[in-house]
Amino acid sequence: MKTIKIVKIGGNIINDEKALHSFLTDFAQLKGPKILVHGGGKLASELAKQLKIPVTMIDGRRVTDTQTLDLITMVYAGKINKQIVAQLQANNANAVGFTGADGNTIISTKRPAEPIDYGFAGDVITVNPQVLTALINNKVTPVFCAITHDANGQLLNTNADTIAAELAIGLSADFNTELYYCFEKSGVLSDVTDDTSVIEQITLETYVQLKTNGVIFEGMLPKLDNCFHAIKNNVQKVHIGNTAMLFNSKNKHTSLQLS
Amino acid sequence: MKTIKIVKIGGNIINDEKALHSFLTDFAQLKGPKILVHGGGKLASELAKQLKIPVTMIDGRRVTDTQTLDLITMVYAGKINKQIVAQLQANNANAVGFTGADGNTIISTKRPAEPIDYGFAGDVITVNPQVLTALINNKVTPVFCAITHDANGQLLNTNADTIAAELAIGLSADFNTELYYCFEKSGVLSDVTDDTSVIEQITLETYVQLKTNGVIFEGMLPKLDNCFHAIKNNVQKVHIGNTAMLFNSKNKHTSLQLS
Repeated sequence: MKTIKIVKIGGNIINDEKALHSFLTDFAQLKGPKILVHGGGKLASELAKQLKIPVTMIDGRRVTDTQTLDLITMVYAGKINKQIVAQLQANNANAVGFTGADGNTIISTKRPAEPIDYGFAGDVITVNPQVLTALINNKVTPVFCAITHDANGQLLNTNADTIAAELAIGLSADFNTELYYCFEKSGVLSDVTDDTSVIEQITLETYVQLKTNGVIFEGMLPKLDNCFHAIKNNVQKVHIGNTAMLFNSKNKHTSLQLS
Repeated sequence: MKTIKIVKIGGNIINDEKALHSFLTDFAQLKGPKILVHGGGKLASELAKQLKIPVTMIDGRRVTDTQTLDLITMVYAGKINKQIVAQLQANNANAVGFTGADGNTIISTKRPAEPIDYGFAGDVITVNPQVLTALINNKVTPVFCAITHDANGQLLNTNADTIAAELAIGLSADFNTELYYCFEKSGVLSDVTDDTSVIEQITLETYVQLKTNGVIFEGMLPKLDNCFHAIKNNVQKVHIGNTAMLFNSKNKHTSLQLS
C-alpha cells in the first residue's frame, strides 16, 4: 500500500501571509499522496467584528449560529481555501478545495444542544473516501477546510484536528496513513516553558504514565486523545510538531504509536 | 461518446432561496453527466455595502479591486457554492465545488488595464478537463462559481457565461457537449415585450439575418456571440431559456446550432 500524509496546519501559519506562502512552497514539493487540512485563523473573528456579528466562545470553541455559519463558510471555504489552492497550483501541485459536503466526503451530525449548545457544530460520523481516492490517484491534493455537512443540506462547523484524524482513519483501508499536526511548538513538551524539552516518542502505555504524572495536562489532553483515537483505528503514525518535521525527518518532534 | 450537459444559472435563481431549492431538487434528478455553473447574484453587492466596500460597475461588469476579489471569493466560492453543493448532496447528487483554481481546471489571464481597467478580471485561456473527467466518470457533478486563476497564485473574477462556454468547449474532446443558459426569459424573443415570441431555432445563417434586421440587439448580442463561439468550437448544441427547458424538452426555448 502507498503511504499518504494528512497534514493539519493551524492559526500560526494561516494568520501569517509570509509563513503560509513559505509553507505552501515546501508542501507542494512533498513527494507522494497528501492531504492538507486547515483551520480558520483569526480572519473569521475579524470579519465578524466588521459585520457586527457577535462572537461567542465556550471553552475555546466557537458557538456557531446561522450568521456565524455563513461567515465561516465564506472565510474558511471561500477566501482561505481558495487562496491555498491557487498558491499550490502556482507551485505546480494540483489541488482541489473541499468541505465535507464536496464529494460527500465527511458526514457529521449536529452536536446535541445539551449540555452546551454550540449551534451548527458537527461531530463526524462517516468519511466517504471514494472521491478523494479517485483524485489522489490522479495526483491531486485535496485541501480541506473545517466544514462538514449532515447529508440533509446543512453545513456544520467542525474541528479541524478532528477532520484530519477522521480523514486519516477513513483512508486507512486504501493507504498507510500518517497524520501530521503542525502547531507553534516543536512537539509535546515535558516542560511547557522549554521548547527543547520535546518528548520524541509516546506510546499508549507511556501516554498513561505521562497523564498520571501530570506531565501532559489541560489543552494537550484532547489533542492527544484525538491522536490515539486515530492510532487505535488503523492510522500508522501521528506526528506533532512544527512544520519543519514534514521536510526534515530528523527535526525533533513528537511521534505517537500504539506500542 | 457520452453526452454532458453544462448548465448555467444566473441571479434570478441564485437570489431566490425557494427557486434555487426547487431548481436543485430537479437538477439532481437530471440523468447523465452534468456540470452546474452559477453566477454570483446580489449577495456580493449586499455584503460589499455592509463592509463599506465601494461597488463600481462599468457596462454592467464589476470592477474587481483586491477587496472586491476577496469579497466575491467569499460569497461565490464560499457561501453560494457550498450551499449548492450541500443541497445537491441532500438530493443524492454527488457534487464537488470548483473555482478554476481547483484542479487547475480554468486558467485565465488578467484583462489588460487598457482601454478599461476592470482590475482582477480574467479572460479564459485554457481549460484542463482531466480532473473533471475523472470526477464525472465517478458520477460526480462539478459545480463551478465564476472565479478562475492565472496559474501564478492570482484568483480572477470571470464571467459565468464564459466559464460555461469554455468548459463545454474544453470537454468536447471527451463528450458530446450541450450548453444550457438559463435566465428569466423563455428564450431569445422576436419581440422583447412578449415572452411567448420565442425564436425556437437559430443557426449561424439566421443569426446574421436577425442581427441585420435588428431583431436581436444590445444585451443579447454578447450572449449569442458567446454561444456561437462555443458552437464553432465543437459544442453540439446551445439552449437558451428558463430552467423548465432542462426538465421538459418540449418546453419552448431557443436552440442554437451551426446550421
